[in-house]
Amino acid sequence: MRPTAQARVNLDRFMATLDRSSEIGVGREGGLSRLALTDEDKAMRDVFAGWCREAGLHLTIDTMGNMFGRREGAEQLPPVLIGSHLDTQANGGRFDGIVGVLGGLEVMRTLNDLGIQTRRPIEVVNWTNEEGSRYAPPMMSSGVFVGAYEIDWAYGRLADDKTTFGDELERIGYKGATPAGQRDIDSYLELHIEQSDVLDREGKQVGIVNHGHVSHGMIVEYRGETAHAGPWPMERRRNALLAAARLLVAVDDIGWDFAETGGKATAARLAAWPNKAGIISDWAEASCDVRHEDPKVAAVMRERLERAVNETAAKAGCEAKVLERWSWGGDMFDPAMIDLVRRTTGNLGYTSRDIASQAGHDAYFMSRKCPTAMIFTPCRDGITHNNREFSSEQDLEPGLNVLLHAAVARADRK
Amino acid sequence: MRPTAQARVNLDRFMATLDRSSEIGVGREGGLSRLALTDEDKAMRDVFAGWCREAGLHLTIDTMGNMFGRREGAEQLPPVLIGSHLDTQANGGRFDGIVGVLGGLEVMRTLNDLGIQTRRPIEVVNWTNEEGSRYAPPMMSSGVFVGAYEIDWAYGRLADDKTTFGDELERIGYKGATPAGQRDIDSYLELHIEQSDVLDREGKQVGIVNHGHVSHGMIVEYRGETAHAGPWPMERRRNALLAAARLLVAVDDIGWDFAETGGKATAARLAAWPNKAGIISDWAEASCDVRHEDPKVAAVMRERLERAVNETAAKAGCEAKVLERWSWGGDMFDPAMIDLVRRTTGNLGYTSRDIASQAGHDAYFMSRKCPTAMIFTPCRDGITHNNREFSSEQDLEPGLNVLLHAAVARADRK
Repeated sequence: MRPTAQARVNLDRFMATLDRSSEIGVGREGGLSRLALTDEDKAMRDVFAGWCREAGLHLTIDTMGNMFGRREGAEQLPPVLIGSHLDTQANGGRFDGIVGVLGGLEVMRTLNDLGIQTRRPIEVVNWTNEEGSRYAPPMMSSGVFVGAYEIDWAYGRLADDKTTFGDELERIGYKGATPAGQRDIDSYLELHIEQSDVLDREGKQVGIVNHGHVSHGMIVEYRGETAHAGPWPMERRRNALLAAARLLVAVDDIGWDFAETGGKATAARLAAWPNKAGIISDWAEASCDVRHEDPKVAAVMRERLERAVNETAAKAGCEAKVLERWSWGGDMFDPAMIDLVRRTTGNLGYTSRDIASQAGHDAYFMSRKCPTAMIFTPCRDGITHNNREFSSEQDLEPGLNVLLHAAVARADRK
Repeated sequence: MRPTAQARVNLDRFMATLDRSSEIGVGREGGLSRLALTDEDKAMRDVFAGWCREAGLHLTIDTMGNMFGRREGAEQLPPVLIGSHLDTQANGGRFDGIVGVLGGLEVMRTLNDLGIQTRRPIEVVNWTNEEGSRYAPPMMSSGVFVGAYEIDWAYGRLADDKTTFGDELERIGYKGATPAGQRDIDSYLELHIEQSDVLDREGKQVGIVNHGHVSHGMIVEYRGETAHAGPWPMERRRNALLAAARLLVAVDDIGWDFAETGGKATAARLAAWPNKAGIISDWAEASCDVRHEDPKVAAVMRERLERAVNETAAKAGCEAKVLERWSWGGDMFDPAMIDLVRRTTGNLGYTSRDIASQAGHDAYFMSRKCPTAMIFTPCRDGITHNNREFSSEQDLEPGLNVLLHAAVARADRK
């Protein structure tokens, strides 16, 4: 195994880097609130760009604001890409996504320390707006990178603050000139905290991600009619807010019906207009999803969700329109890449288990473009998207070293 | 009957005045969007103030921004107050409230035309923020006027745009020096479109309002915990958005259970945080109410609503707190005032019927302070809080003349 089986990342340096990130966009106690394309996101990007340059990486910003720090290889071959995202949810943690990007940076620094040149180039990437919190949907920019989304559609995505993705990307100075995607990538590796408690409960050091839970989601728009909240008879009401509320309840009911086999369904978001006391709302939008490890069961859940759209519209006297549907998950990771992670973990002597990813990740989109795999590290009690999210440095070290050796092995392969 | 039984308002002048109002804060086709303390509200107030001065009225603005145009009487006695409100809902009509204020102004102008001095003064009032659309609750400023609400509490009310009532009242220049209330009022008469279709269906010209449907409402706050929308198990979820959605659905179910006897229940408003895809919301607020003509039935509906608060919180793993409760309606109007409206209508030869008010009105609060009654005019198909709200000049004329003669009779009584 090259560089040498003994090579290890510099954990102190990594933790210091992570600590610096934890100072940018501070949210609730111990957490971060660093939404995509905000001033906080820009501040983090500026710091990350500086780190890349200091590490001698060639920095490229693409038209989606994705940041690539490239370490050249001995040969002109497509690069091995490693990374994740630096944006967070509104009540986000200090680890989700960030560990993957800064872990990728640490791999580069370690290779510099050891003076190693890989055969293929390695690039560390910070994907823009993985969370989809300010601009839906999530994983937007890896989606554009692989051609799943049109870039103009992405630019037009609207936030609650009425800004568009394109305008804000330009405002923070990260609308680069390099086309998003449109080049070959050898392979993609993403290190991430597990975001569930399987590794933590079982005391395993590394999760070898072999598939993802299937998720089906949608944004539904309801249209009704305004009327006075008092006199207007029940049978004439066309309350769009109510229709959306009924959908969210139906979604939750679906989740409970499949909870025993690990199914989940989330009432995630509701907006309405006028959404005021005294008047019935004539417009509402609801976002929700259903998830299950078994694709067939997920399909059943999805079918129930689709039925609920029409049922809730009828019950509230409204028209429903599904503005967006998305699906992800399943068996998307590359067997050879999974095997590489498994062998590397074994060679390094870490305890591990095969595991499913329950959350969505940029790796899901990247798997459409190139051989892809993920490496999970433990996440205390599975708490995430919460300021109490936590992983100790002992939790993180094994995953970081697996990333180092797997990336180099992949970059050096014949 | 004085001034003379033949006296009538100038309908053309009234309609021209109403048309001018319809140009200020134009909303959707045919409607208005003139929310309290916005620039549009200020523009309307400025125009109304000008009209009052032109009519020789003494204009007073109180500390809640309530506008009083006073026409002196022969004697120093408490005034007869007539009026309503000039603010509208976000998708409001051109008549709701406005007819009562401009109708009051037309009474003054008619008395000027006829050179009549009444025994008591008559004042026309524009109550601030009747709709409660931008700043909850509705009827806020008549509430302060009669001592139902503290003024500092009212000043602190927060809009979705993060402004406070007090700051915006000052910004538009309508925070007057005169204390709100704290003076004697002889009586209060409010002319209003019916906001239901009883008069329109039956072809009656005037509604003699003898009571109000009972309404019980509340604002409920739920607190849960943020978590990832994907991996977090159903049984650990504490989704505040979902709790609020469940409450709104429960409210609607209550409405349907009592619909046969004319009961209504409204899912009016829902706000949540972060309210984003990918994360479970840890905070939500829901506003709702139940209404019934029979106070005993309304109490049963209220009881079910109270139970639903705890049930929905438990179901979603959240804590619930009722931030506000309100109740209004019942037999609050003064028998002598109702009789005055009935006799006046009869004397003028208009067809009429006794009728209940289903909406809340400033008259509800004023009834706590002085003898109060309301006069309803037909409202096409009962449509209101909607840009399609409509009353023809033929619909409005009888009510205006009843207001004229009833106000004068009340002002002149021994």
